[in-house]
Amino acid sequence: MNSFGSKFRITIFGESHGFCIGICIDGVPPGINIEVDDFNNDILRRKPGHKGTSPRIEADTADIISGVYNGFSTGAAITILFHNSNINSRDYEKYCDIPRPGHADFTADIKYNGFNDFRGSGTFSGRMTLALVAAGVIAKKLISPIAIRSNILAIGNSKDLDKAISQAMEKRDSIGGIIQCKIENIKAGIGEPFFDSLESVISHLVFSIPGIKGIEFGNGFQAAKIYGSENNDVFIDSDGTTKTNNSGGINGGISNGNNIYFTVAVKPTPSIGIIQKTYNFASHKMDELEIQGRHDVCFALRVPVIIESVTAIALANLI
Amino acid sequence: MNSFGSKFRITIFGESHGFCIGICIDGVPPGINIEVDDFNNDILRRKPGHKGTSPRIEADTADIISGVYNGFSTGAAITILFHNSNINSRDYEKYCDIPRPGHADFTADIKYNGFNDFRGSGTFSGRMTLALVAAGVIAKKLISPIAIRSNILAIGNSKDLDKAISQAMEKRDSIGGIIQCKIENIKAGIGEPFFDSLESVISHLVFSIPGIKGIEFGNGFQAAKIYGSENNDVFIDSDGTTKTNNSGGINGGISNGNNIYFTVAVKPTPSIGIIQKTYNFASHKMDELEIQGRHDVCFALRVPVIIESVTAIALANLI
Amino acid sequence: MNSFGSKFRITIFGESHGFCIGICIDGVPPGINIEVDDFNNDILRRKPGHKGTSPRIEADTADIISGVYNGFSTGAAITILFHNSNINSRDYEKYCDIPRPGHADFTADIKYNGFNDFRGSGTFSGRMTLALVAAGVIAKKLISPIAIRSNILAIGNSKDLDKAISQAMEKRDSIGGIIQCKIENIKAGIGEPFFDSLESVISHLVFSIPGIKGIEFGNGFQAAKIYGSENNDVFIDSDGTTKTNNSGGINGGISNGNNIYFTVAVKPTPSIGIIQKTYNFASHKMDELEIQGRHDVCFALRVPVIIESVTAIALANLI
Amino acid sequence: MNSFGSKFRITIFGESHGFCIGICIDGVPPGINIEVDDFNNDILRRKPGHKGTSPRIEADTADIISGVYNGFSTGAAITILFHNSNINSRDYEKYCDIPRPGHADFTADIKYNGFNDFRGSGTFSGRMTLALVAAGVIAKKLISPIAIRSNILAIGNSKDLDKAISQAMEKRDSIGGIIQCKIENIKAGIGEPFFDSLESVISHLVFSIPGIKGIEFGNGFQAAKIYGSENNDVFIDSDGTTKTNNSGGINGGISNGNNIYFTVAVKPTPSIGIIQKTYNFASHKMDELEIQGRHDVCFALRVPVIIESVTAIALANLI
Repeated sequence: MNSFGSKFRITIFGESHGFCIGICIDGVPPGINIEVDDFNNDILRRKPGHKGTSPRIEADTADIISGVYNGFSTGAAITILFHNSNINSRDYEKYCDIPRPGHADFTADIKYNGFNDFRGSGTFSGRMTLALVAAGVIAKKLISPIAIRSNILAIGNSKDLDKAISQAMEKRDSIGGIIQCKIENIKAGIGEPFFDSLESVISHLVFSIPGIKGIEFGNGFQAAKIYGSENNDVFIDSDGTTKTNNSGGINGGISNGNNIYFTVAVKPTPSIGIIQKTYNFASHKMDELEIQGRHDVCFALRVPVIIESVTAIALANLI
Repeated sequence: MNSFGSKFRITIFGESHGFCIGICIDGVPPGINIEVDDFNNDILRRKPGHKGTSPRIEADTADIISGVYNGFSTGAAITILFHNSNINSRDYEKYCDIPRPGHADFTADIKYNGFNDFRGSGTFSGRMTLALVAAGVIAKKLISPIAIRSNILAIGNSKDLDKAISQAMEKRDSIGGIIQCKIENIKAGIGEPFFDSLESVISHLVFSIPGIKGIEFGNGFQAAKIYGSENNDVFIDSDGTTKTNNSGGINGGISNGNNIYFTVAVKPTPSIGIIQKTYNFASHKMDELEIQGRHDVCFALRVPVIIESVTAIALANLI
Repeated sequence: MNSFGSKFRITIFGESHGFCIGICIDGVPPGINIEVDDFNNDILRRKPGHKGTSPRIEADTADIISGVYNGFSTGAAITILFHNSNINSRDYEKYCDIPRPGHADFTADIKYNGFNDFRGSGTFSGRMTLALVAAGVIAKKLISPIAIRSNILAIGNSKDLDKAISQAMEKRDSIGGIIQCKIENIKAGIGEPFFDSLESVISHLVFSIPGIKGIEFGNGFQAAKIYGSENNDVFIDSDGTTKTNNSGGINGGISNGNNIYFTVAVKPTPSIGIIQKTYNFASHKMDELEIQGRHDVCFALRVPVIIESVTAIALANLI
Repeated sequence: MNSFGSKFRITIFGESHGFCIGICIDGVPPGINIEVDDFNNDILRRKPGHKGTSPRIEADTADIISGVYNGFSTGAAITILFHNSNINSRDYEKYCDIPRPGHADFTADIKYNGFNDFRGSGTFSGRMTLALVAAGVIAKKLISPIAIRSNILAIGNSKDLDKAISQAMEKRDSIGGIIQCKIENIKAGIGEPFFDSLESVISHLVFSIPGIKGIEFGNGFQAAKIYGSENNDVFIDSDGTTKTNNSGGINGGISNGNNIYFTVAVKPTPSIGIIQKTYNFASHKMDELEIQGRHDVCFALRVPVIIESVTAIALANLI
C-alpha cells in the first residue's frame, strides 16, 4: 500500500515517466497558509543539477489541485502534482531482460507480474521523493516551532565531499554517504512507548526513501560497545536537560526535551557507468550490462531535505 | 497507541507490576494449531535467570483466554495473558523524584501527567516484550516455511561474550550488544515500495523493543563507504540468486529471494549498580542515585528471540 | 477483524462459553477516573433477568486487568474482562447439523471452516455486547458533557410493551422492537463530510450489534416522502437552532448543535420455542428443529444501553 | 478525514468549483484491465441533464493520471481526476451570511472556521460523488462475478416517478425518494461479526453519500413488527438457500449466499426555488432566502449508481 499515517495521512502516487508524480495529504487542519512559493526552497534543495547529480531537469513546480483556497488550507484533502516533461524512456525496456543489479527491476517484475510501469523505474523512481518533500513542507508548518536540519557527514569514506564525488565520477562509478538529522526545539513528551515510539515512526519513514540502508539514534551502534555508566545521560536541570546526549533525546520512545538526532546510511546509486556482468533472464545466461539513462553519481547529496521531510511527516503524526 | 498492524494486528497491554501483561491478536485465520506448549521454547529463550540477566523469575505460562478452541484458532481475536506474581514494587517511588538516567521515568511522567503506573517501569518494562514473543510464536506459524534466526554477534566490544558480561558484573555496570537476524526461505516479492517496505515495517517493530538504538540492513553503514560497483549484487541465476548479498536480500523494499539479514544495536541496560550523580526534581538540585531493584546486566542476551518475534509479526503483516 | 476506531480504538474478544468475554481499549488519555462501580449501572441495564429476557444470569463484574492504576487511567491500553460461569453448552452441537434459522450458525461454519467455537454461539453471542457496554461507560466519560439517552418506542407493533411481550411468551415466540437514541448537549462541528460523517460512524457501530436491521436519522424514511420545503429545517437563532429538526441535528455529516436523534429496528430473537421446519445439513433433507437453551423472548429490551454505548464510542472517535 | 478502507483504500479530494474533483485508490492489484471507456456507462447514469436534475453539465471524463499503464493497473495507487469547467460561483457568497436550510453551509463554516471553499458547496458538493462512482467502476471489476443493481422504488410518496417530479417542479420544490440495492451472485462467508459486518461497512459508505437519511437491510423496520417465527428464514437446501429472505441475505454480519438487498431513503434536495424564511447570521435577524444557482429537483434520480458504487467499494474491502 502507498499510504502512511493516521492524523497526517499521505498517499503517494504517480510514475517517473507517467503524466506526473503526486501526493494526497489528508488531515491538514483548516487555516494553514500554503502558497506555491512555500515549496520552492525545499524542492530546490532536492533538485538535481549540481555536480554528482542526475542531468534530468524538471520544472518541479508544485501544482496544488485541491484543499487550498485563497492561500489557506480548507481542511479537505490536499493533492499536489508534479508534472513530468523531461522524459526519455528509450533505455528501460532492456532492464526487463537484464535487471539492473541493486535496483528494483527484478523484485518489481516478480511482485507486479510484469504489469508495473518500468519506464524510468516507474513508482520505484527516486523522483517519487519529490512528493515526500512537498508533504514535508506542509508538515513542517504544522509542527512549528520544531526545527529539523539535515546535513551530510561523509561521502564514501571521506569528509572531503567534493573530492569523493570527483573520484567516483572519474571511475564512472557511484558513491553513497552518511547523513545526520537533528530535531531542535522539540518539547518533552512526544512519542509513545512501543509501536509508535519516535524511533519506530521515524525509521519507518526513513526506510521508505529508496537507498537507505541503516539508521541509528543518538550514539547508536556505539552504545552497544560501552558500559551503562558511560552511556547513561544524567539529568542536570529541572527541564530535563542532560549532561550528555547519547540517547539522542529519546527515552522509552518519547522525546525528553533535548535535541533529537539520528544518522542515516545512503547506499551508492546502483546505476553506474561501469559495465557489469550479470544475469540475462531472457537468454538464461550471464551477460554484460551497460547502463545509460540519466542517474546520480551520488544520490546522497539530494537526501538531506528528504530526510527532513519524512521526519516532519513523522512528527506531524505524533503531535 | 498500543497497536500495530493491519492484517495481523496486535494490541499490547498490561503493566510490569499489575495483574498481568498481555496481548490481543486480531487477524489469525481459523484452523491454526495453537497449544500452550508451543510458546514454551521461545518464552524460555527470553526468560531471565542466566548469568547477566535479571533475578526476577516468573512462571511465564501463556494463558490463552480467547480465540482458540480445541487446540485451533477460531478466527476470532486471540488474547494471551502472562500473570505477574514475583512483584516487588518498593523501590520505584523514589524514581518519581530522581528519574533514572537512560530510563523512561522522566518522559513517562511528562507524557502521562504522573498518572502512569510507575511500579516496575509499568508499561515501559522490558517484561512487555514477553507479549511480543507470544505474538511472534503465532506469527511464525503463519509465515511458515520462512525461518527466522537471531544470534548475538558481540557483547560490548567483544566477541567473548562470557568475559564481557563478567567484566560488567564486576564493575556493577551494564553492557549492550550487537544482534544479527537472518530470514531464510523467503521467496521474492514480499514487501512494498515506499511506506511498507520490508525495511520500514521491520525497523518500525524492532524500534518498538526498548533499548534498541540502531539497525542496518545488509551491509548497512558499510554501503555508504564503498562504490556502487562494489556494493551492487549482480544476479547469477534465474531464481534471482545474487553473487554477493550486500543488499541483505531486499531491493526497492521488496525481498529478492536471497536471505534477508539485518543487524541491531542494543544499548546497555540503564539500571546499573554504580551510584550516579543526577538531578533530583523534588529538591531541585543534583543528587546521588543508587538503583536497587532487579535488573539485567545485559538485556541484549534476551533480545534475539524478541527480534525474531517482531520480524515474524512484520512478515505476517506483509504476506 | 474485531477492532474499531482510531482515536478510541476497541478490540473485542472472547466467547460466550469460553473463559471470558472482554475488550481492549486503546486511546484513553491518562487521568480519567475509572472505578469498577462506574460500570454497574449500564451493565445492569443490559443484564437479562427481567420478563422477556434470557434466564442466563452472570455476575457481570468488570474485571479491569490493565490501564487503570489507583482509580485513574494511565494512558496505556485498558483491558476489561467479564468472566463466564453460568455455562451450559449441551445444546449447541446439534446446530452444526441443523443451523438455527436467522442465526449465524450457518454463516459462521462456512466462514471459519468449522473451527469457530460454536458453544453458546461463541463470538456471535449477544453476550459480546457486554464488552461494548463496558467500553461505552468509558467513552461516555470522555465525551462529557454530551448526554446520550435511548428508549424503546415500540415492541412489535405495539406501544403497550408489557402486553406485546406477554403475547410473544404465550406463543413461545419472540418479538423485536424499535429504539430511539437521542444525543443532547452536543455542540456544532462534530463529524466529517463523507466517510467519517456522524451517520457513517454511528451506523457502522450500530450495525455491529447483532439483530439490528435498520437505522434512520432524524425523520429518516419519512424525509423521502415529503417536499424539500417541508423537510428543510430553517434556522431561527445565531447558535444554529432550527425551527424543526427533521435532519436529526446533522447537516453534511456534521452536528449542527441541535439534538441528534436516530431510530433503530431490532429484529425478533431468532431462537424461538416453536418447532421450525428447516434443512438438516447432515441428513440432507428437511427436518424439525426445537431450540432449547436459554434465550431472550425480546432482546430489544436489552438493546437501548448498547445503542447508547456504541454511540458514545462513535463520538469518542470523532471528538 | 477523507479516506476509507484498508484493502481497497480510497481518498477523495477536490472541490465543486475548484480545479477538479478526484480520488486516489490504493490497493488495486496489478493486471486489472482499466480503460477510460470503462467509466462511461456508470458516469452517464449519474450525470445530470434529465428532467428533474441539475442543469450543470460537465464532460465528466475520467482522467487517470497514475497507476494504469498500457490499459492495466500496475499495482501502484490509481488517481483519477474529473476536471471542473462549467463553474458559476457568483451565487454562493451570500450563503455565508444566510446558510441554506438543510445544507452544510452552517456546519462547514463552524467546523472549518470559515476556511472551507464554499463555492458550489466546495467539498460538500454532490459532485464529489462522481469520484465515488469512478472508484466503484474499479471495485466492480475486483468483486466480479458479484453483480450489484440499484433501482428507484418511489419518488416522494409515489411510484409514478415522472408525475412526482413534475409536481415538485411545478411547485418549484424538491422531492426525495426510496432506492433499493440488490447484490446477486455473492457466495456465503463474506463479512465479519461485529465491526466489519456487511451491514456496518455498507451503511458506513452509504451514509457517506450526501442526503441519505435511512437504510434497512432485508425487511428492515418491518422485522421489528413481526414475530420470530414469521421473520426467521428457514433453510431449504444444502447451499444455504432459504425459503424466505427477510434477513436480506445476511446472518451475523456475514453473507449466507442468498441475494443481499437493502433499501435507502434519500431526502429532498435542500435547494428549492421557493423563498424560505430563515436566519441571517450577519444581520442577526430572520430574513428571506431565495436560492438561485443550479440544483437538482430530485437528486434521488442520480443516486442508484452511487449506491452501487459504494456497495462495490464495501465489498472490495471485505473480500
